[in-house]
Amino acid sequence: MHRERFYTLTASCPDQVGIIARVAGFIAEHGGWILESSYHADSLTGRYFMRLEIKASSLPFLLAEFRERFRTAVAEPLAMSWQINDSAVKKRLVVLVSKQEHCLYDLLARWQAKELDIEIPCVISNHDAFRGFVEWHGIPFHHVPVTPDNKAGAYAEVQRIFEDVRGDCMVLARYMQVLPSGLCAAYPGRIINIHHSFLPSFVGAKPYHQAYERGVKLIGATCHYVTEELDQGPIIEQDVIRIDHSDSIEDMVRYGKDIEKTVLARGLRYHLEDRVLVHGNKTVVFR
Amino acid sequence: MHRERFYTLTASCPDQVGIIARVAGFIAEHGGWILESSYHADSLTGRYFMRLEIKASSLPFLLAEFRERFRTAVAEPLAMSWQINDSAVKKRLVVLVSKQEHCLYDLLARWQAKELDIEIPCVISNHDAFRGFVEWHGIPFHHVPVTPDNKAGAYAEVQRIFEDVRGDCMVLARYMQVLPSGLCAAYPGRIINIHHSFLPSFVGAKPYHQAYERGVKLIGATCHYVTEELDQGPIIEQDVIRIDHSDSIEDMVRYGKDIEKTVLARGLRYHLEDRVLVHGNKTVVFR
Amino acid sequence: MHRERFYTLTASCPDQVGIIARVAGFIAEHGGWILESSYHADSLTGRYFMRLEIKASSLPFLLAEFRERFRTAVAEPLAMSWQINDSAVKKRLVVLVSKQEHCLYDLLARWQAKELDIEIPCVISNHDAFRGFVEWHGIPFHHVPVTPDNKAGAYAEVQRIFEDVRGDCMVLARYMQVLPSGLCAAYPGRIINIHHSFLPSFVGAKPYHQAYERGVKLIGATCHYVTEELDQGPIIEQDVIRIDHSDSIEDMVRYGKDIEKTVLARGLRYHLEDRVLVHGNKTVVFR
Amino acid sequence: MHRERFYTLTASCPDQVGIIARVAGFIAEHGGWILESSYHADSLTGRYFMRLEIKASSLPFLLAEFRERFRTAVAEPLAMSWQINDSAVKKRLVVLVSKQEHCLYDLLARWQAKELDIEIPCVISNHDAFRGFVEWHGIPFHHVPVTPDNKAGAYAEVQRIFEDVRGDCMVLARYMQVLPSGLCAAYPGRIINIHHSFLPSFVGAKPYHQAYERGVKLIGATCHYVTEELDQGPIIEQDVIRIDHSDSIEDMVRYGKDIEKTVLARGLRYHLEDRVLVHGNKTVVFR
Repeated sequence: MHRERFYTLTASCPDQVGIIARVAGFIAEHGGWILESSYHADSLTGRYFMRLEIKASSLPFLLAEFRERFRTAVAEPLAMSWQINDSAVKKRLVVLVSKQEHCLYDLLARWQAKELDIEIPCVISNHDAFRGFVEWHGIPFHHVPVTPDNKAGAYAEVQRIFEDVRGDCMVLARYMQVLPSGLCAAYPGRIINIHHSFLPSFVGAKPYHQAYERGVKLIGATCHYVTEELDQGPIIEQDVIRIDHSDSIEDMVRYGKDIEKTVLARGLRYHLEDRVLVHGNKTVVFR
Repeated sequence: MHRERFYTLTASCPDQVGIIARVAGFIAEHGGWILESSYHADSLTGRYFMRLEIKASSLPFLLAEFRERFRTAVAEPLAMSWQINDSAVKKRLVVLVSKQEHCLYDLLARWQAKELDIEIPCVISNHDAFRGFVEWHGIPFHHVPVTPDNKAGAYAEVQRIFEDVRGDCMVLARYMQVLPSGLCAAYPGRIINIHHSFLPSFVGAKPYHQAYERGVKLIGATCHYVTEELDQGPIIEQDVIRIDHSDSIEDMVRYGKDIEKTVLARGLRYHLEDRVLVHGNKTVVFR
Repeated sequence: MHRERFYTLTASCPDQVGIIARVAGFIAEHGGWILESSYHADSLTGRYFMRLEIKASSLPFLLAEFRERFRTAVAEPLAMSWQINDSAVKKRLVVLVSKQEHCLYDLLARWQAKELDIEIPCVISNHDAFRGFVEWHGIPFHHVPVTPDNKAGAYAEVQRIFEDVRGDCMVLARYMQVLPSGLCAAYPGRIINIHHSFLPSFVGAKPYHQAYERGVKLIGATCHYVTEELDQGPIIEQDVIRIDHSDSIEDMVRYGKDIEKTVLARGLRYHLEDRVLVHGNKTVVFR
Repeated sequence: MHRERFYTLTASCPDQVGIIARVAGFIAEHGGWILESSYHADSLTGRYFMRLEIKASSLPFLLAEFRERFRTAVAEPLAMSWQINDSAVKKRLVVLVSKQEHCLYDLLARWQAKELDIEIPCVISNHDAFRGFVEWHGIPFHHVPVTPDNKAGAYAEVQRIFEDVRGDCMVLARYMQVLPSGLCAAYPGRIINIHHSFLPSFVGAKPYHQAYERGVKLIGATCHYVTEELDQGPIIEQDVIRIDHSDSIEDMVRYGKDIEKTVLARGLRYHLEDRVLVHGNKTVVFR
């Protein structure tokens, strides 16, 4: 991860002749060095998507000026939705967990190893179980219990904490509560969940039980953005593992953890590296 | 495949102490050499499953006598459902196709290479397209058109041909018609379909279109026994391949063929080698 | 595959600021519509790679003029290695086989289904076994026996046929002879082999036997360009499947076929769609 | 993991008629309930392998008496190598690490979740980096530095600690030192390593660099028993992930961690559940 500082530009706009020429031309004109670039035309909707990494030191001005110039020279004429991020500014990831530790341990190991370029300003849980583990890492821990009676208050508290720590992204690392739709709607494309099935199979509760009942030969996990509709948000990443008739539901739960944490970490990395562009209820993922 | 002749015994019965001892004891008593054996206890339903391969030449009697002795000494006392097959008797596989060739070519290549230990007494199709190809292989071809008006007649004809050629198993190798429930019910555990999705996702028509719409990151195929309920039968085998945002529906159709034929061939092999035991709407597959 | 006519431009050049701007600028200037484009900077060697698909009808001139203009305006100033192909001109694929049919059936099924955009002007084999099958498809078949004594003559004949039919690419579809180094050297990046192991493991003869001996838990297949050094050429595509202790060498041979044909078809598709750029002994594959 | 107490019997012996009958007969005679059983005949070497789980409460005597009776009635007459373990006795796993945390975090998460039925009496490292993390879990940590000069002393100390804590199994969780052959020889089948390549490709140091150089399209990890020959021991488990030309060596190192920890955990589980029988330089793994 010892990469030189760079900016990541992501954008989408109506497709037309000359988009790449205009974007790349603008960058070249200022001496900008493109490290990596990806483009995608969605032929059914006529929308164009792109992601570029530009070496920061190759540009003669700072990001604020790049933004201003790019906006007028390129983005507005092309009617773009766009953003540009600086690799020197770490994203702030707020982790929500319940009682299962596999995703939490996995994320903290990656954070510890600087494998993900993030700050974790805090962990929030509806249980107090992982306080010691989290605090040992020097990360603040918030216990926000959720009961049938205090849902509104609890989620107001979650939102307050997220705002307080200026969170960029909320990750539900096997957080076993359904977020209220107001909270989901407040942060579109910023709340990431790991669902323990290969969606759209086995939406909702106890997917491994459902999988066992149906007798499938592979079980899966799905990393997706949270939207107001349960388990229906844009899918970022999925994977599966093979099981067979000898595996009990408990075995499936146990083996499933391995893809849950891997798929979550992969999806999260794509998100944090600005590789995911949401398009309706689908995603473009520039790997 | 140059294996010595063997018998394959498959059985299930209520679980209790001493099942293996009784079965293996009976075989050992007669000098029977067990080449391969697999056992499975379903703890939720208390049912016990097994599959054994016994070297034919190690037994002092023929299969008919084995059957008789086994029935009285083992099967009846244990209340078994069971069957035993002879590797020297090839299963007779009737192939049904429509207009896509990938599964047909794949099956005929395996048949040609003696990779599957089968006879193909005929191919049936609702189109005439593959007559030449099939007949070139020396396999009879039956064109049985299916129109909205002649369904009953057409399927009566399919059934008549299947009975005529003494088919053991019917395989729907991308046969794009829904079999009438009477036909499905007539041959439980003997009609095998390949569905071009990872069931239970995307049941019914145009699963790749459904997959495209939902934005999944993997597409799959499912080999299953046909039952009266469409795409709901016991699953034998499944697999998936990775796609991404750049893949059109046409790409998915194209890439999907590779898992369709592989999953079908794998599921079919398990079936033909008596590796699949149906249990309610699920399967035990002794690989 | 009902795509509108397009040109595929592939190129590599020393990395510098402004490459994309120059290439995309040239295309935009002439109203060219970029359907798909991919770029890669190899940071260790400082070489830049790209692949673009341009809608043919969007350009105001034909390919010959595009070539001329692009050469002077872009390719020469950037010191590019490049080529541009027309989707309307099908590549001519000469297939070499021995006695195993799985890759041959697979390729002809894909050709039949127009899944690969190719012509197969002939099949060459050192055995006569598949003459009938190939000729039934209307494809000429050449039996060129190879014996220890006639190697030079036999390969001169293979080369003569390949030249005669103006072959673009030679595919060794489980052709069990080692091509002489002169022939390999004559067609760099144009002879494609499928090796039945996960290279660099198990180079040379009988890789499944080697895999069995070593006790690996996965077996693989590798699609690569043929060079003068046996099994050392640039790798295009690889894949593996799981085996276990119960699988004999014969089982591995049998199951291995499924990845051999799939990996070959995938690698071949990448090659035929101009998705593969060779870089030293490695490949850039723009999927 | 809330399973009732059971015994796991593993054995191998020369193949002959009646082995299963004898083993299962012995168990049935004493009312033993077989929960799970697997058998394998290695036809090339004529050796027979088995693994059985027997419900502890179904037997009328304790394990010591089972051992005694089984030895005389079955094991000695069949010339068996065998052992039987009690699920109530947790295996004691000593973890060796260096500076990379991913396997350590992964193992401790599994231990914490009681996903692996083990005790970890201590962690040993040639660095002091993870002392705090390990001790926070209540697990003793031993810093045993290894320098070119003190190798003999250091490994004597490792062995002393392992003996002191009565370790059953030593796991090299990305321990970046080569164990001396004396230590390897002292614990055959009890030292487990994770190698960061798909063996036999890329033996020895810096396998990701080797993989990068060769241009492979998949990278792998191998869990194996340590023997005196570096990276040559019996393979327990392997897996791979896809990479492409855009992945740097650093990317491969980063992505590789995900299969390293998963493959290690899987191999370790097989070992700890007595699913692995070593056979020459290969393994039978009853999954």
